[in-house]
Amino acid sequence: MNIQFKKEKIITSLKKRVHITQWITKYTKVDCIADLVSGLTLGLTIMPQSMAYAALANLPPHYGLYSSFMGAFVYTFFGTIKEVSIGPTSLMALLTLSYTKGLPIEFVILLCFLCGWVQFIMGVFKLGFLVDFISMPAISGFTTATSLTIILAQLKGLVGIRFSSDNIFHYVQKFYTHSDKIKLNDLILGVCCIIILLIFSKLKDIKLKCPSAMKALWLLSISRNALIVLVSSVIAFYFEYKYGESPFSLSGNVVSGIPTLALPKFYTQIGNDTVTFVEMVQKLSTAVIVLPVVAVLSNVAVAKAFCKGKAVDATQEMITLGLCNILGSFVQSMPSCGAFTRSAVAHASGVRTPMTGLYVGTIILLALTFLTPYFYYIPKSSLSAVLISAVVFMVDYKIVPKLWRTNKFELLVTFVTFIISLVFSVEQGLLVGVIINCIPLLKVWTRPKIDFAIKTFQKKHNYLLIKPELGLYYSASDFFNSQVQKMIMSIDYTIPVVIDFEHFFHVDYTSKETMKHLLTDLQSNNHSIIFLNLSESIADTLQEIIDQFCIRCCQSENEIFDELTFTSVEIDEGAGTSLLPHKPKA
Amino acid sequence: MNIQFKKEKIITSLKKRVHITQWITKYTKVDCIADLVSGLTLGLTIMPQSMAYAALANLPPHYGLYSSFMGAFVYTFFGTIKEVSIGPTSLMALLTLSYTKGLPIEFVILLCFLCGWVQFIMGVFKLGFLVDFISMPAISGFTTATSLTIILAQLKGLVGIRFSSDNIFHYVQKFYTHSDKIKLNDLILGVCCIIILLIFSKLKDIKLKCPSAMKALWLLSISRNALIVLVSSVIAFYFEYKYGESPFSLSGNVVSGIPTLALPKFYTQIGNDTVTFVEMVQKLSTAVIVLPVVAVLSNVAVAKAFCKGKAVDATQEMITLGLCNILGSFVQSMPSCGAFTRSAVAHASGVRTPMTGLYVGTIILLALTFLTPYFYYIPKSSLSAVLISAVVFMVDYKIVPKLWRTNKFELLVTFVTFIISLVFSVEQGLLVGVIINCIPLLKVWTRPKIDFAIKTFQKKHNYLLIKPELGLYYSASDFFNSQVQKMIMSIDYTIPVVIDFEHFFHVDYTSKETMKHLLTDLQSNNHSIIFLNLSESIADTLQEIIDQFCIRCCQSENEIFDELTFTSVEIDEGAGTSLLPHKPKA
Repeated sequence: MNIQFKKEKIITSLKKRVHITQWITKYTKVDCIADLVSGLTLGLTIMPQSMAYAALANLPPHYGLYSSFMGAFVYTFFGTIKEVSIGPTSLMALLTLSYTKGLPIEFVILLCFLCGWVQFIMGVFKLGFLVDFISMPAISGFTTATSLTIILAQLKGLVGIRFSSDNIFHYVQKFYTHSDKIKLNDLILGVCCIIILLIFSKLKDIKLKCPSAMKALWLLSISRNALIVLVSSVIAFYFEYKYGESPFSLSGNVVSGIPTLALPKFYTQIGNDTVTFVEMVQKLSTAVIVLPVVAVLSNVAVAKAFCKGKAVDATQEMITLGLCNILGSFVQSMPSCGAFTRSAVAHASGVRTPMTGLYVGTIILLALTFLTPYFYYIPKSSLSAVLISAVVFMVDYKIVPKLWRTNKFELLVTFVTFIISLVFSVEQGLLVGVIINCIPLLKVWTRPKIDFAIKTFQKKHNYLLIKPELGLYYSASDFFNSQVQKMIMSIDYTIPVVIDFEHFFHVDYTSKETMKHLLTDLQSNNHSIIFLNLSESIADTLQEIIDQFCIRCCQSENEIFDELTFTSVEIDEGAGTSLLPHKPKA
Repeated sequence: MNIQFKKEKIITSLKKRVHITQWITKYTKVDCIADLVSGLTLGLTIMPQSMAYAALANLPPHYGLYSSFMGAFVYTFFGTIKEVSIGPTSLMALLTLSYTKGLPIEFVILLCFLCGWVQFIMGVFKLGFLVDFISMPAISGFTTATSLTIILAQLKGLVGIRFSSDNIFHYVQKFYTHSDKIKLNDLILGVCCIIILLIFSKLKDIKLKCPSAMKALWLLSISRNALIVLVSSVIAFYFEYKYGESPFSLSGNVVSGIPTLALPKFYTQIGNDTVTFVEMVQKLSTAVIVLPVVAVLSNVAVAKAFCKGKAVDATQEMITLGLCNILGSFVQSMPSCGAFTRSAVAHASGVRTPMTGLYVGTIILLALTFLTPYFYYIPKSSLSAVLISAVVFMVDYKIVPKLWRTNKFELLVTFVTFIISLVFSVEQGLLVGVIINCIPLLKVWTRPKIDFAIKTFQKKHNYLLIKPELGLYYSASDFFNSQVQKMIMSIDYTIPVVIDFEHFFHVDYTSKETMKHLLTDLQSNNHSIIFLNLSESIADTLQEIIDQFCIRCCQSENEIFDELTFTSVEIDEGAGTSLLPHKPKA
């Protein structure tokens, strides 16, 4: 019976984790068509894009494709956000490059494997709550900056020029100096594509009387990205076939073939030296922490950007991302996570469920087997047009007047996140935004409300009751001391002091040590001290203090009366002497 | 009358800031002697040390001395911690170097000026509370790692070898390879100095019957550092004079003369180009934020290390540090802050008040004018001995068993801070320690307690009362939604939902947007919604939601009864229809 129960519990929690079980039964034909269309679009987007990102990380382009299908498959089964598309991203590529520059490819794949484990473990330890601190104003600054960065980066592709830049000022300057190299054909194709895409995106809103015409318009609208890439590729192919030369910049050659399934190599060769696993990890150093954390942050930020306030199960996302990377490393993937561009394309293509991932993965596998020769013909500027018209709607200017009206501090958060993301880097912007946003929350822990009350019993004896409302953490311990001392000063006669521990869950080392100073002070001024409502664990922690200062502990107000009456009698007897402290009762 | 009152208020707050006013009236002769002795010791320590730090920042050595006196003077008047000695530190020197490498000296001085302003502004905006998050376990890890780092660095000087190293492993390896270059004379002098210093440090604890002998022992004990430097210099001078060569490594030549008082230059020349103020700031880039923040952090960490739990007025320290650097830049100082080594020396020399700073500053000015030729003779190994025997007592191993017994999480904080400080860098260690220490505090904001109660009125009507205990911040908004939805699911019949805003101080954008999802959900399931105890400002913020969802607002339970009875009647009238929402009354 017990085993049966346990079995059921395991099945329930497994079902919760294998997220596909929660929506697959409701999967309809309409969902399927929408997902197929957006899958095709995403597939056509991810292929050239992932190859570009592989090149960004100094890897041969086909590693980009290797990194794109396993994540897509895994996310279908475990993922919760329909727009998220796992694969290489520019952020991950740049971080990978910065840690593995000049090292063999085995380091990149091992990094992917380790990233996956770190993310998986973060998920298992439920560190998802940390992601709750990514607020909407921070997300808004992040998405707007990312969108602008992507638009700027794609503008180069759109006009057919190539250069690299460190930051936005550098970019503008370089764009200006390279402006004479703009290719008119690419520019015309790109602009036409954007115009067509923007018009098509509005098609689905046209109200017609005939339902089948409506349906056709909707299909045309959501498949616009795929259509544009296909049509422009056919045009390029036609020119190449007829005149032997294409008027546009094309995507170029790719290596064919599916990678074999194998564990990543836990050793490698640099020159003639064999490098062991430990040495490899040492060389990767902080990458093993930085990459997974940045991946989780940006993945959840992307997810939240598309959820518009609906809950994101960050723990589930961590576990999924972990599995994507662990299994990805078996097919020689580089570290991957959800990409903002692809999510925007999926969103614009009307994605309905994570099933898209299955289609995307299949398309990439097919591509690796059969289609790679044809990808050669995809014009770069039509791809840029697809990306630009997908992310342009993510520029979130509407939040500014909303925040201005209700909360200017949060507007500052948006603004700072935006500026730092744009000028420095996206992960820095997001981090700074999150930290600034935390400041008011942290401030509460340094300045908690403390209730002071002077209580009277038997109409003649007073005592001072002190009760911190949120308990006492290290960050408030200095403040607590100074508040109590101020209070005692204002009373200016000797009064028993009762500290109520009701709201204390826990006493840390700093508050304990700081409290000693307060107690020394109180005792040297002859105030007797009583601890009220000590829980067992806190009494344990404070035992040293209780012994050192001979503090009495009470569990109720009546006990305080008893203690104080007893003390008062003693004063009467030994007139002129100070209050004698008693051994604690507890 | 009103002006009189304002004037008094200004004087009071000025008195609070000019901290010397609070202790100068109680300054005694014994204080004066103790401060003079520790001032002399500190002076003798700071001079060669500051020149070394200037060299570390790629500046001529006399700039180290320029950086040591203004801070000392200013700190006397504004500082609160008697042990803190402002001047160049290794941390500041290394950071300065990393931002101003290859730039003219004007950049360093401008950086000092800007650092000062940033610190001053941080103080004025009372950002001191941020420093409350530096807990004792983190401080302990920081001080122990810093002490060990300093001991290791000084060991080189003690045995007369020179090399630079990136981290502790590198250090040990280099020490081993350089071990054949150890100078025996330096080693012997250094070890003798350490032994004498350690014996002398115990002298003051010897109990004698004669009070004047006790006093002599005390004076001998606290002046031990100064004595050792003096005596060893005299020995070196004697050998140099008699044999033309000293057996020890000496400190060497220094430029004489006091710098003129002038504003820092707001422009400079690089080659033939004039660099404007704006361009200078652009080149300094993040240094303008990083340096002041690191300086404040390490200054307060040092202060807290010597206060052992007593409150540190971080705001005052920020303002003081700011003034030290602003005024310092007028005498061509590099960025400076309190140094751990010097604080340990001051502590070991029995410092009593911040007045020491005045003596230190005077000694340095005298030195710059008259004494520099004699500093040539200070043996490096005796200085190393002074520093080593000052910091060796700061290694805090006693905290480990204490934390092990009561709080293992805080032990982890100590341990992580220690390891990262030792292996990477002190500022990184402190930062990571503080962040880890914050995690439990932050977690409370993501999982607040929410009170649910089903209330009954007129013995037949129920409603669900929801009251979050700590209000609702963005970090808890997802959690709040899911908890409420779980609760509603468990009730499984249509029930009016009352959200009590009593504990809300403020509603941020994220909670507002997230709440919209909840309300949409509730309304689509025909639950009517009432907001209870809305304050005016929160009602303002939520007006959009109140209008959109036609939510009724109440200020008391009676009002709820009225609202709900009215609704119930309506249900009876329009049988079968859903609850009609009403326009808000408020």
